[in-house]
Amino acid sequence: MSTERVSRFPVVELADMPEDLRERVGTIAEKSGFVPNVFRALAHRPAELRAFLDYHDALMERSDGLSKAERELVVVASSGANHCTYCIVAHGAILRVRSKDPQLADRVSSNPWQVRLDPRQRAIVDLSLALTHDSAKFSDADMAAAREAGLTEDEIWDIGNITAFFAMSNRIAHLTELAPNAEFYSMGR
Amino acid sequence: MSTERVSRFPVVELADMPEDLRERVGTIAEKSGFVPNVFRALAHRPAELRAFLDYHDALMERSDGLSKAERELVVVASSGANHCTYCIVAHGAILRVRSKDPQLADRVSSNPWQVRLDPRQRAIVDLSLALTHDSAKFSDADMAAAREAGLTEDEIWDIGNITAFFAMSNRIAHLTELAPNAEFYSMGR
Amino acid sequence: MSTERVSRFPVVELADMPEDLRERVGTIAEKSGFVPNVFRALAHRPAELRAFLDYHDALMERSDGLSKAERELVVVASSGANHCTYCIVAHGAILRVRSKDPQLADRVSSNPWQVRLDPRQRAIVDLSLALTHDSAKFSDADMAAAREAGLTEDEIWDIGNITAFFAMSNRIAHLTELAPNAEFYSMGR
Amino acid sequence: MSTERVSRFPVVELADMPEDLRERVGTIAEKSGFVPNVFRALAHRPAELRAFLDYHDALMERSDGLSKAERELVVVASSGANHCTYCIVAHGAILRVRSKDPQLADRVSSNPWQVRLDPRQRAIVDLSLALTHDSAKFSDADMAAAREAGLTEDEIWDIGNITAFFAMSNRIAHLTELAPNAEFYSMGR
Amino acid sequence: MSTERVSRFPVVELADMPEDLRERVGTIAEKSGFVPNVFRALAHRPAELRAFLDYHDALMERSDGLSKAERELVVVASSGANHCTYCIVAHGAILRVRSKDPQLADRVSSNPWQVRLDPRQRAIVDLSLALTHDSAKFSDADMAAAREAGLTEDEIWDIGNITAFFAMSNRIAHLTELAPNAEFYSMGR
Amino acid sequence: MSTERVSRFPVVELADMPEDLRERVGTIAEKSGFVPNVFRALAHRPAELRAFLDYHDALMERSDGLSKAERELVVVASSGANHCTYCIVAHGAILRVRSKDPQLADRVSSNPWQVRLDPRQRAIVDLSLALTHDSAKFSDADMAAAREAGLTEDEIWDIGNITAFFAMSNRIAHLTELAPNAEFYSMGR
Repeated sequence: MSTERVSRFPVVELADMPEDLRERVGTIAEKSGFVPNVFRALAHRPAELRAFLDYHDALMERSDGLSKAERELVVVASSGANHCTYCIVAHGAILRVRSKDPQLADRVSSNPWQVRLDPRQRAIVDLSLALTHDSAKFSDADMAAAREAGLTEDEIWDIGNITAFFAMSNRIAHLTELAPNAEFYSMGR
Repeated sequence: MSTERVSRFPVVELADMPEDLRERVGTIAEKSGFVPNVFRALAHRPAELRAFLDYHDALMERSDGLSKAERELVVVASSGANHCTYCIVAHGAILRVRSKDPQLADRVSSNPWQVRLDPRQRAIVDLSLALTHDSAKFSDADMAAAREAGLTEDEIWDIGNITAFFAMSNRIAHLTELAPNAEFYSMGR
Repeated sequence: MSTERVSRFPVVELADMPEDLRERVGTIAEKSGFVPNVFRALAHRPAELRAFLDYHDALMERSDGLSKAERELVVVASSGANHCTYCIVAHGAILRVRSKDPQLADRVSSNPWQVRLDPRQRAIVDLSLALTHDSAKFSDADMAAAREAGLTEDEIWDIGNITAFFAMSNRIAHLTELAPNAEFYSMGR
Repeated sequence: MSTERVSRFPVVELADMPEDLRERVGTIAEKSGFVPNVFRALAHRPAELRAFLDYHDALMERSDGLSKAERELVVVASSGANHCTYCIVAHGAILRVRSKDPQLADRVSSNPWQVRLDPRQRAIVDLSLALTHDSAKFSDADMAAAREAGLTEDEIWDIGNITAFFAMSNRIAHLTELAPNAEFYSMGR
Repeated sequence: MSTERVSRFPVVELADMPEDLRERVGTIAEKSGFVPNVFRALAHRPAELRAFLDYHDALMERSDGLSKAERELVVVASSGANHCTYCIVAHGAILRVRSKDPQLADRVSSNPWQVRLDPRQRAIVDLSLALTHDSAKFSDADMAAAREAGLTEDEIWDIGNITAFFAMSNRIAHLTELAPNAEFYSMGR
Repeated sequence: MSTERVSRFPVVELADMPEDLRERVGTIAEKSGFVPNVFRALAHRPAELRAFLDYHDALMERSDGLSKAERELVVVASSGANHCTYCIVAHGAILRVRSKDPQLADRVSSNPWQVRLDPRQRAIVDLSLALTHDSAKFSDADMAAAREAGLTEDEIWDIGNITAFFAMSNRIAHLTELAPNAEFYSMGR
């Protein structure tokens, strides 16, 4: 376990979490080999961590429509535009794993506007960026562009709501100055 | 029930929601006298609505620290900065009710930067605005200003996380073009 | 009369205004039932108040082209984009009265970019927004879009000049921290 | 008279203006040696031109407080920040004449934030810039800085209201694509 | 030689420069009649001045493709957008000389977005502005617009690289607070 | 050698470069084990590549003042703020090597504003960021903050001029859509 500060607020170690969270986070930790710091930081407020996990899974674990890699693409693009270190490093790692492409995450997070993607991926990222900043200007034209690229209504909902969920996560990470686990930096390279 | 379009995506009426949501949203509807449109829109995805309600309640219904009116102040200030019609109109109504001040919501939502507030309220709004836009620049100086104004660590957590939660909500409202219920416009005036 | 501070600078009550202004502002006050605070604040400089009234009337009281409600739509849209509390609250009230629509003002002021309007109204608001921020980029394309929507040259002039006049008014309100009269908040709801 | 287009809208030559405007603009033309294009463009709407002239004179011809050169400094700084060609070229010329400094106008208009000025001038320009962009954030701190630099309440009013008046003028110039008279470019160099 | 401060850092007079630079800058000084201040300021670091001169000449003295006046148009447009006093004043003078148009430089530097230009000049300026701010969003659409306006691949390279070189120069001028030589202000008027 | 497109413009392989460049770039390639793509892209214009190399070395290879790692810190911070994929990936690799810290580059490039650094490093990054965007507002206060942190005049010059040089490089990379070599992504991790 890193001795570096993980959060501006108190963190809770796995062993000290309420039983349901210990089990749930424990399962993730077993798969990853470590407890992602976001869970140690959010466990400061168990009810919030439970809702966070439920919301995350509802959006990120759906089996139809967007692939898992495409969902991570949304996360990395909008977190890159928001300059969120934790989400770029942690979800960049997951995107490397899911896309089996060791370069894609760094390209997308460093410049989601210019990164060369196939037309479907480009439409996914454009829709996400339209909601990341200045979302009050989101318009029928953004919807039309997504549909023309072949995205279904359910895929558009997912892209938009994943972007919204990470607009929240990015701000939690900025508030807490959340430090990524050392393991994420090299995973999937 | 308004015949106006509520969302860009299909909505689900109370009677058609899964039983747990029908009960939960029904309780809110009984208190308000109508079903807030955000629930009709999010019920398109029951698992997401459940997580949304849990997260909302975890942050907005806590009994210690910030008062209910102060929590709504955070919502209205950051939603005003984000130009989110649904959240301004709906939570503006709740802020009028909770603060018993018929002008505060319009003042805060129209100009959260300049509205004259007492020092504690100003510190609450400043912290929220520091995370609403350009949250990557959130800094120790923002934390120090909040503490100097007497806000506790738990209150700072709440302000930051409510702001983050509504960064999500505002984007969902912009994606869905969520229409406020007619009732909210005049409530508490 | 509210005991709240109306302006950062000294205000002049109706009875203390020079005769011509007392008469002119008095007529408005009789119709409204109160003296709008902008006049009490600007009467600090009678010559400026006279020019303000003349300019306002030349732009807002013209009988051809744009309707009165459309002129107020321009005011509320650009003042919303500028986050001007006084103009949003006061002209929001007038827009409710003129449009006989109790929701339109809150929708337009909270999000002039996304509010759903008919095509003529949308073209009016788009032209106004093109001059509200970054007006140095106003271009032939903005003119062409307005003309394609059927706006005449005189209507374009009016929309542009009303926007310009309220770019001034908004800044005067921000400088003076002008407080809206309590009456405006509920008028026309 | 230049054959170049002066405005996107019809212009009125001096001889064709209503008598009062012909006289008033004629007096200015005699002093300058030419009819400034802003008057030819605004005479398209005589009532608006009358109010414009009255407002301009009320703010720019006051004899106490700010000097004439200081009033032009406000105009050139805020018009520079707004990228308004007409106001930069025309009022730059007047500032050269009034300040007897052939470089000041180009320095201020090209970079009002960094131009080296004496402390009183710097405070004047800072106050103006605080209202030029993002005026919703104008605050007690801006007022305090102006007062600490020795500016009186009346001088602060003038700086703020001149800035507001040229926020309007700059937008009129951008709407009409107003061309500066050739004479202004070299005047006072 | 002006007694005004030229730079925030020590400057080197022509006579004190290393021999190669004395000769090279001397040739320029002979042609202009004075030593442009940028060379006195950069001579603080002879190796950097050498590279600066080499880079400048490689981009600005090429004989094919863009004309000399068109190269200066790029400089003045992007320096205007960057609010760089030194580059606007010095290269504005050169643009007046090269274009034989006494107004063009002031028009372009004050508002490069709206200045009326012929279609080739407009395409040149648009390409430059696309790289001046927010260059991460530079896209295939910007390339396509340039090509449609008839610009060759080599001309596009030149416009982009001149813009990039002056993105550097503007920042050096802002760091050093570089003062333009008095002679530039009136040259070519 | 990657078959992926390296630049929007023709590239020149090492073997086809003019002799002096072949030697100079060859030396770098031997050390790295590959030819960094920026040289293949810029060799399209040998005179520009020569000046680029000279300028780069003059700023990055100086032996006094800033350490090599600190110079790379400036590059990665400003390139991160500019969303320049090539410079983030390539100089991120060099920073990992020079700082012997496998995490620093990802932290700095993803969020140069919030990354926790020691006071000297923070002052270096702050000065660089003050010149990266909105450099027209660079002020005496920025200079004073740097000096208070103990940076010498020569170090300030270096930080500012490295930032300026990479403002250029970032724009060249955006224009050419420069692709980082595959080797850079994993170097030094």
